[in-house]
Amino acid sequence: MQLTDERIMQLLHTWPVARLATRNHSDQLKQVPIVFAYHQGKLWSPIDGKPKKGRELSRIENALEHPQASLLLDAYSDDWQQLWWLQLDVSLQVVGLDNEQSSEIIAAANAAVTALEEKYPQYQTVPVLREPPTLLIISINKISSWCFKETNPSREA
Amino acid sequence: MQLTDERIMQLLHTWPVARLATRNHSDQLKQVPIVFAYHQGKLWSPIDGKPKKGRELSRIENALEHPQASLLLDAYSDDWQQLWWLQLDVSLQVVGLDNEQSSEIIAAANAAVTALEEKYPQYQTVPVLREPPTLLIISINKISSWCFKETNPSREA
Repeated sequence: MQLTDERIMQLLHTWPVARLATRNHSDQLKQVPIVFAYHQGKLWSPIDGKPKKGRELSRIENALEHPQASLLLDAYSDDWQQLWWLQLDVSLQVVGLDNEQSSEIIAAANAAVTALEEKYPQYQTVPVLREPPTLLIISINKISSWCFKETNPSREA
Repeated sequence: MQLTDERIMQLLHTWPVARLATRNHSDQLKQVPIVFAYHQGKLWSPIDGKPKKGRELSRIENALEHPQASLLLDAYSDDWQQLWWLQLDVSLQVVGLDNEQSSEIIAAANAAVTALEEKYPQYQTVPVLREPPTLLIISINKISSWCFKETNPSREA
């Protein structure tokens, strides 16, 4: 079974977490969980104020070197009849919010930050952007999905 | 912060789900959630009786073509102080349990199947292997981990 278009859109708007797979300079695959907000048909993921692993920002280096990536949304449940996943072939764009950035991108990024703050109340205490302010724009090229059976996914991630 | 070695071993033994990233014949990255059991220092993941998407077994094709992959264990929580992830650089080996397989591999696979049945009561109703009986053996080459702060991960996936 596949997820319906309606459920896919609902998940892209509301699901709290996704797993991003990129490849590094040695062509080794790397994965990391990310938060994101849906805005203007794309997913926006901030480099936020959560503590970072020394090399965690390798996601930025990897995106710059290899923009073709994968994003996975899914939920595990002990009730396997509830299982589903949504896998996206994506292209990554790294956007730094500096003086050289176009006003159009700055405006879209500001709106995406607002969407992130609305989606995640955690950003009341964690900065949504750290210095230098940087976001990943995730463009969706292809969608694949699966579910054990047609049900509404519960909000578990 | 990183996870302690003790917590990493606990997660490898008990965590119910991981996300596997592979690359396909077109070099596009693909991700899928998998179940697994730890046995003899490796992770074993069966091609089980859950309904499959038409091309879901692309994970097998991908593993045969590109054995270098990534596996991610993590848990999302609305309490971001509970966040952690464990990322493994892995090598995949596809093992078919046919007459041409060595008795040593067959014995190890049978023990892994027992470990899977013990870990997942769901296999009382879902076949742990479908035809042709096939498992992925996942060898761990490198471990990276991160946690917001030192805590014991709760069992949420």
